[in-house]
Amino acid sequence: SASYKVAVLPGDGIGPEVMAEALKVLNKVQAEFGFNLELSHHDVGGIAIDNHGTPLPAATLAGCEAADAVLFGSVGGPKWENLPPNDQPERGALLPLRGHFKLFCNMRPARIYQGLEGFSPLRADISARGFDIVCMRELTGGIYFGQPKGREGTGANEKAFDTEVYHRFEIERIARLAFEAARGRRGLVTSVDKANVLQASILWREVVIEVAKDYPDVTLNHIYIDNATMQLIKDPSQFDVMLCSNLFGDIISDEMAMITGSMGLLPSVSLNDKGFGLYEPAGGSAPDIAGQGIANPIAQILSAALMLRYSFKQEEAAQAIERAVSETLAAGYFSGDLYSADAAHPVQTTAQMGEQITARI
Amino acid sequence: SASYKVAVLPGDGIGPEVMAEALKVLNKVQAEFGFNLELSHHDVGGIAIDNHGTPLPAATLAGCEAADAVLFGSVGGPKWENLPPNDQPERGALLPLRGHFKLFCNMRPARIYQGLEGFSPLRADISARGFDIVCMRELTGGIYFGQPKGREGTGANEKAFDTEVYHRFEIERIARLAFEAARGRRGLVTSVDKANVLQASILWREVVIEVAKDYPDVTLNHIYIDNATMQLIKDPSQFDVMLCSNLFGDIISDEMAMITGSMGLLPSVSLNDKGFGLYEPAGGSAPDIAGQGIANPIAQILSAALMLRYSFKQEEAAQAIERAVSETLAAGYFSGDLYSADAAHPVQTTAQMGEQITARI
Ligand SMILES: CC(C)[C@H](C(=O)O)[C@@H](O)C(=O)O
Ligand SMILES: CC(C)[C@H](C(=O)O)[C@@H](O)C(=O)O
Repeated sequence: SASYKVAVLPGDGIGPEVMAEALKVLNKVQAEFGFNLELSHHDVGGIAIDNHGTPLPAATLAGCEAADAVLFGSVGGPKWENLPPNDQPERGALLPLRGHFKLFCNMRPARIYQGLEGFSPLRADISARGFDIVCMRELTGGIYFGQPKGREGTGANEKAFDTEVYHRFEIERIARLAFEAARGRRGLVTSVDKANVLQASILWREVVIEVAKDYPDVTLNHIYIDNATMQLIKDPSQFDVMLCSNLFGDIISDEMAMITGSMGLLPSVSLNDKGFGLYEPAGGSAPDIAGQGIANPIAQILSAALMLRYSFKQEEAAQAIERAVSETLAAGYFSGDLYSADAAHPVQTTAQMGEQITARI
Repeated sequence: SASYKVAVLPGDGIGPEVMAEALKVLNKVQAEFGFNLELSHHDVGGIAIDNHGTPLPAATLAGCEAADAVLFGSVGGPKWENLPPNDQPERGALLPLRGHFKLFCNMRPARIYQGLEGFSPLRADISARGFDIVCMRELTGGIYFGQPKGREGTGANEKAFDTEVYHRFEIERIARLAFEAARGRRGLVTSVDKANVLQASILWREVVIEVAKDYPDVTLNHIYIDNATMQLIKDPSQFDVMLCSNLFGDIISDEMAMITGSMGLLPSVSLNDKGFGLYEPAGGSAPDIAGQGIANPIAQILSAALMLRYSFKQEEAAQAIERAVSETLAAGYFSGDLYSADAAHPVQTTAQMGEQITARI
């Protein structure tokens, strides 16, 4: 039977707790659907700094290289917050991983789950309309990696600089994936840019318009980033696929996650052109609730489902997980973040959520 | 008696309509408070393209140079949307004006007006808490004006680039104004950056921390831009003064305006180090409702009040306008954007709003 190697990087904060539940679920599906997952565990982020002096040890990178996919928890916490930016867990682990594996395509779905509208921070009539958006974020270009980047001079004229740069080929490949995604959804791509100010955005817009010609069945709109942050709040239901540069995608995908009101449910995937991917929850390491066994493991579990879908083409297994999650929520089982007084069952621990979901597969 | 020269640039869309009401109000206060305003009118934006072939004609610029302050309406509309980005009304008029007059300090207050919480797109319990934020945006630096900026190469490797760059002195002067503003408010500065990715943000953070030493009575927090867009939605009441780079301020100030639900009430000011300023409403030219006499003139009227305060030091006159606006709203007079069925009076036209406010001075 098919066998896949997964590098498991639980990381910090709630990472290890929610990862444990994702592994329970994966264990169940591999038995049910007749494939085999070979897991290797590695330190990343703050725990890697503590144990090995660096947020992305060579052994961890080697472990990821030897694997077919990376299942990532979350990194960071107050303990490492005062390190120089380059050495901090988030930046020191995530950016090199993205760069090293050329994970140029970051996809983050965000939607309002039926019955959970009340958790959205948006006005009741807006959240009641619901929404279902995918953010397609370019992840290895733009101002994150552009050169030159540095600091020069002294005194009042000392300056620091970064370069926002996009090449035609970089825009084209992420745009193409956005249009493909829109085809399987509601057929609308909204490209986010700042073409009234940035040269990189002007090229971005031009290339997106060209790529759109190959997808006459998909509608293309353009929106400025400042307006996009407003429209997402005013009426998120107007969007389907949002196509963004690295920096604008960072902003939009977070805002999008926030307006669902249920960040604990949102998975994400970062892919390269070979289908190799890194899968991680949209939320962070949540140090404030770490170690208490109360975090919501669903985002991590759904990230595992995306791994089965995109990296291993195990669509049925992926759907089985997604169905089990929906059924668990529909049956009224909620962790503290989504609990309300009228829920059918008492607040569930991280482990109880994992068990409820596993049992439904 | 004191005399001030004002360059009046109504612009496009609803600009001329709301400007007419601001001028009514200014006319009343100059009589009441014993100073004299000399107005000169100039085309800007789309109308300037139509009449003179360019969004910022030399005569308009000369008119602004001859004035003590600029009262700006709004520019842009569908008619000019397909021009090359550099020639469009917004970018072709606003950016050169900011650059020419070195208007490095953009201040945009945003708050929820009592009684208007229901218009906020945020959940009722969040908007009920209210908020009152000022965005301090650096307006002449960063990626808007940084060099090099351009395009190179051909084929798949064609690239376009922009430079995010900040000098120590640029950060210092805007930071200082943010701390000064916080002193007169709730004593909290939140500096928005992306210091986990951008070199310019690392310098930004360092300089802000240094400036903070001169303001021990003000609390300083730092927040990443991605988190800022989330926190603004989750709990805007946590912020007082938000200190931002040019690009991040563009995003934050718009998001902030949107969550008030009453963009038609929000003025803004852009100042240079001599106190010369450009005053404009936060909203745009709203071409969809232009020419119907239904736009809300309050943002324009409050922009005129800010002009009296910051450029002419006519604090009493400024307060008289602000009080008249508050009283008009409290008395239940609303234009269509803020009208609800339980309002005390029928929907007011632009001119009626202007008259109600003028009558209360
Ligand atoms: C930690 C940080 C460098 C990262 C980013 O900006 O990409 C994070 O915000 C994200 O979105 O994954
Ligand atoms: C029109 C545009 C160039 C401008 C900006 O990005 O600064 C506008 O969005 C603003 O905020 O005044």
